[in-house]
Amino acid sequence: MVLERINKPNDIKTLKPEEYEILAEEIRAFLIDKISRSGGHLASNLGVVELTIAMHLVCSLPEDKIIWDVGHQSYTHKLLTGRREGFDELRKYGGISGFPKKRESSCDAFGTGHSSTSISAGLGYAEANRILGKKNLVISVIGDGALTGGMAYEALNNAARSKQNFIIVLNDNEMSISHNVGGMSEYLNQLRTGDIYNNLKNSVMDTLKKMPKGEKAIAKIRKTKSGIKQLFIPGMLFEDMGITYLGPVDGHNIKKLVRVLEEAKKLDHAVLVHVITTKGKGYLPAEKEPWKFHGVEPFDIETGMAIRQKTKPTYTDIFSAALVKLGEKYSDLVAITAAMPDGTGLARFREAYPERFFDVGIAEEHAVTFAAGLAAGGMKPVVAVYSSFLQRAYDQMIHDVCIQNLPVIFAVDRAGLVGSDGETHQGIFDLSFLSTIPNMNIFAPMNLYELTDILKFAMEFNGPLAIRYPRGEAYDGLKELRTPIEYGKSQVLYKERDIALVAVGNMVKTAVNVREQLKQYGYYVTLINVRFVQPMDELMLEELEQNHFLVVTLEENILNGGFGVKVTRFAKNRNMSYHVLNLSLPNLYVEHGNVGILMKEVGIDTDTILDRILEYLKDRK
Amino acid sequence: MVLERINKPNDIKTLKPEEYEILAEEIRAFLIDKISRSGGHLASNLGVVELTIAMHLVCSLPEDKIIWDVGHQSYTHKLLTGRREGFDELRKYGGISGFPKKRESSCDAFGTGHSSTSISAGLGYAEANRILGKKNLVISVIGDGALTGGMAYEALNNAARSKQNFIIVLNDNEMSISHNVGGMSEYLNQLRTGDIYNNLKNSVMDTLKKMPKGEKAIAKIRKTKSGIKQLFIPGMLFEDMGITYLGPVDGHNIKKLVRVLEEAKKLDHAVLVHVITTKGKGYLPAEKEPWKFHGVEPFDIETGMAIRQKTKPTYTDIFSAALVKLGEKYSDLVAITAAMPDGTGLARFREAYPERFFDVGIAEEHAVTFAAGLAAGGMKPVVAVYSSFLQRAYDQMIHDVCIQNLPVIFAVDRAGLVGSDGETHQGIFDLSFLSTIPNMNIFAPMNLYELTDILKFAMEFNGPLAIRYPRGEAYDGLKELRTPIEYGKSQVLYKERDIALVAVGNMVKTAVNVREQLKQYGYYVTLINVRFVQPMDELMLEELEQNHFLVVTLEENILNGGFGVKVTRFAKNRNMSYHVLNLSLPNLYVEHGNVGILMKEVGIDTDTILDRILEYLKDRK
Repeated sequence: MVLERINKPNDIKTLKPEEYEILAEEIRAFLIDKISRSGGHLASNLGVVELTIAMHLVCSLPEDKIIWDVGHQSYTHKLLTGRREGFDELRKYGGISGFPKKRESSCDAFGTGHSSTSISAGLGYAEANRILGKKNLVISVIGDGALTGGMAYEALNNAARSKQNFIIVLNDNEMSISHNVGGMSEYLNQLRTGDIYNNLKNSVMDTLKKMPKGEKAIAKIRKTKSGIKQLFIPGMLFEDMGITYLGPVDGHNIKKLVRVLEEAKKLDHAVLVHVITTKGKGYLPAEKEPWKFHGVEPFDIETGMAIRQKTKPTYTDIFSAALVKLGEKYSDLVAITAAMPDGTGLARFREAYPERFFDVGIAEEHAVTFAAGLAAGGMKPVVAVYSSFLQRAYDQMIHDVCIQNLPVIFAVDRAGLVGSDGETHQGIFDLSFLSTIPNMNIFAPMNLYELTDILKFAMEFNGPLAIRYPRGEAYDGLKELRTPIEYGKSQVLYKERDIALVAVGNMVKTAVNVREQLKQYGYYVTLINVRFVQPMDELMLEELEQNHFLVVTLEENILNGGFGVKVTRFAKNRNMSYHVLNLSLPNLYVEHGNVGILMKEVGIDTDTILDRILEYLKDRK
Repeated sequence: MVLERINKPNDIKTLKPEEYEILAEEIRAFLIDKISRSGGHLASNLGVVELTIAMHLVCSLPEDKIIWDVGHQSYTHKLLTGRREGFDELRKYGGISGFPKKRESSCDAFGTGHSSTSISAGLGYAEANRILGKKNLVISVIGDGALTGGMAYEALNNAARSKQNFIIVLNDNEMSISHNVGGMSEYLNQLRTGDIYNNLKNSVMDTLKKMPKGEKAIAKIRKTKSGIKQLFIPGMLFEDMGITYLGPVDGHNIKKLVRVLEEAKKLDHAVLVHVITTKGKGYLPAEKEPWKFHGVEPFDIETGMAIRQKTKPTYTDIFSAALVKLGEKYSDLVAITAAMPDGTGLARFREAYPERFFDVGIAEEHAVTFAAGLAAGGMKPVVAVYSSFLQRAYDQMIHDVCIQNLPVIFAVDRAGLVGSDGETHQGIFDLSFLSTIPNMNIFAPMNLYELTDILKFAMEFNGPLAIRYPRGEAYDGLKELRTPIEYGKSQVLYKERDIALVAVGNMVKTAVNVREQLKQYGYYVTLINVRFVQPMDELMLEELEQNHFLVVTLEENILNGGFGVKVTRFAKNRNMSYHVLNLSLPNLYVEHGNVGILMKEVGIDTDTILDRILEYLKDRK
């Protein structure tokens, strides 16, 4: 096998040109095999096999720098830089990451995970090279979807001025995770199909035809390679900004790719190489429905079907169904996603109410301010977004939504640990950053019933409200304890004495288990469902003093700025006699891995929580 | 006077056309007079007098919506909507704001302050109108500087798809606050001067000339108004995205402006009206040096000179000088600003080391990730940015800088209360949001000497470090207590007993006064200069227990997520015997007004702090 001869960076350069295509096929087979077992990002990786090979042929690693936007398409890059063996532990705890990581390999020039950062980072490298007098290549690879993100444009705008070679590879697969949206997408489509060129050409031809001897002039133009023909270059938008445009190039033709990259290397400024690729290339089920093979669970190669069938609904499913139902009653309800109609569950709302649905592209900042505008215009907007991506719109939540106290609902999905996507995707900061925003209200449902109830509540609530819920199966326990939601009020699930477990959202489920075990040790345990992280239910915290000596806060969020710290501060400030134990995630980034393992690792699983409480109780005696 | 007949929205429509120009002149005189006394934004407001008049002639307020990007150019709008009398109290506590505010007037459709939000908000209004079946106008007015912000592009990208009339007025004054940068700026310059049009035309002409009968064809083209001539429309970039482009139009010709706006109203989709204005128009000193008349203190109309001469250096001055000095020793030191070379003090660094200076435009997200790229490439980047604008880059700090633990220095200027710019500009969240970021280190210097010292320290420090300092005069007291900075260590300024004042940065100065007064009441008072807000000096907090019964934390930041809460949590968690009093800003937005008044209002002035402490001491007895 050719692939087995690639064991370290630059080994690819020892291959004969006729082996390149064989290598590509072997890599495809390898990726399909491994990902079908481990799960991971498939379609995007199959799309860039040849592109990655071509870049590795042109680059010398690790001196040259390749920066992958988002980064989930870097599997071939990992294979070509000596990490083949690692693929058995891909995305597993302690194994290799599904994204580039500086600390994993010197060939991973820059860690990514969120979209649209690669041009900024690459330009940084390029300018550093300029200052240091280095001639090394810097290549940023960005998808057409990521190009809808504003910071990519900010970076292009700056790259245009650079006096250093800097190659931006536009990996154009005609979609981001879902379908691409907006003016830029339309423009790229015209470039791809040559429509701009053709329309301009036809228009000139028509004009000339009407002139005397026009036909002759046209014949002349057809023969010339310069002049008017050169004038209507594709990529004018980029050229207008001052960035040389090369392409479009077939992204599955290694020879052509190498040639255009060699061309791009010669320039002393920024150049955009427009590469057309097919997502899922070489694996038919993924070519046909690439969005289904974006991030996948283990699947059967023959059929493309997931091996483990989903049984219980996720929180996303519950949200999805509830919103469609509410859309019927509330004609002012509108829904906004930043390129995640499937991931957030808004696809069903789109089907039911296409006129009230907005996919703004990978553009969280715009999404939030746009929602503020919709709210100011009399609508009731729901922004459905993953917790870690909402970090992008921190200022917009302050500046556009909350200063004006506009009724925007934030459906914060993937809050808490998300698992195999790792540190860039963990939703472990939202309780903290949302809590720093005056006027922001924060709710965390303990089970699927409460998610439905808070969405209903939200429709009648007049102010910003963030609802955070985790990835994965929705907890359907405690149905018998369903009670109406009251603004700012927590819910006493079990009223006893001595120890109070005060749990946020998701952690109620864990707290139920912890409580049962504590009771077996002979303790009396109260269990509080926090519901509103902001405003905090101070009355509840006061009442606990009557007959509790220990309050344990439980949240799937970092400690700093989170719920627990606020409780502890309250207790100290008001001289509460009880001790407060804050059980949360540590103030650290959390690696990729199975959520169950991670919870144990960071100490918010049932056993560790129980141990921590028993330890305190022992010390107390 | 014509202006005196304008007392409520739409009064302008009662004027005769020949009175429009007179009104414009009266408004100019009014603004120059008022702003010369109150201070405020002058150049930008003088630039849009005619534009505002034209929009008010075309609109019916408040049903139609005008959304001002940034918003400091909305003074004429305020004058035309019945707020003339308010100008005596402009930007003063309790008076009218220097920015649009929904709660100030129903004609202020959307509150602004930060850049590049208007197209998003306007598109929200437009889509709400579409859903509600309303025909009202929505106009977003955005400057060419604000167009360098990524979210403006995200919004343009989405506006391109709208099926509702939506007018984007590009107020092109050829600069943002300072000079404009980047590819878009270059493109607009070509539109302005007609270079694109001319270059294309010349190229076609040259080609035709070489053909038989080419000269005749050219003569023919010159006569036609359609055909090729129409083909090379300016604004192709916007047209390519799917947004109709109208212009460029003289922004000081009311008749022409009204005509083009009436034209724009007719379309059933998004349209960009390119308006060329002159910043400072009509006031010579401001026309000549508009950047000096961006935000001004009271000035002498005759000379344009500020009335109150600055005497003491500001923190910005100290930073500016120190960085130039460090640039000599550290050849890897690079500096980045997001369109604020003057405001941040980086202009001097630019002069000294132009090759190591980057003005990225109004693009905070790019600025931070670009800095991360520079750091990864071996540089030592300093991002100098106002506290409230750094909110824009929260995710980039997490995702690109701190996960990778890259040595980026954040010079966080205007931290704390900023005064007359008001709630959108107050830098009162940074200690909170920075504290939620693992690996981020946070330092607040107590005086100008310490700002110099921490910058030196930063050059040798290998990790992300945010240095936050306030607007205005730098405190030069306590020079005699200058001691070397040790990582993570606070500084004991006065070691006594009973009461410990633990003060962050700027608040040390206030704490010195508070301490002196407490001593007059007979108390013993320790004073701690916190220095590092993160990591927090826990050893110091432990040691205080030995002989203090009260710890008072002092910070110019909101309570939630700030330093004080962390101290209180520590005290409770470790069973410290002392009580903790957290004196900070409340969890609220803070209005515009004189900083001194605001401090009193929010309770962090010397008197209020003293009262709060004495009150506690009284209760304790």
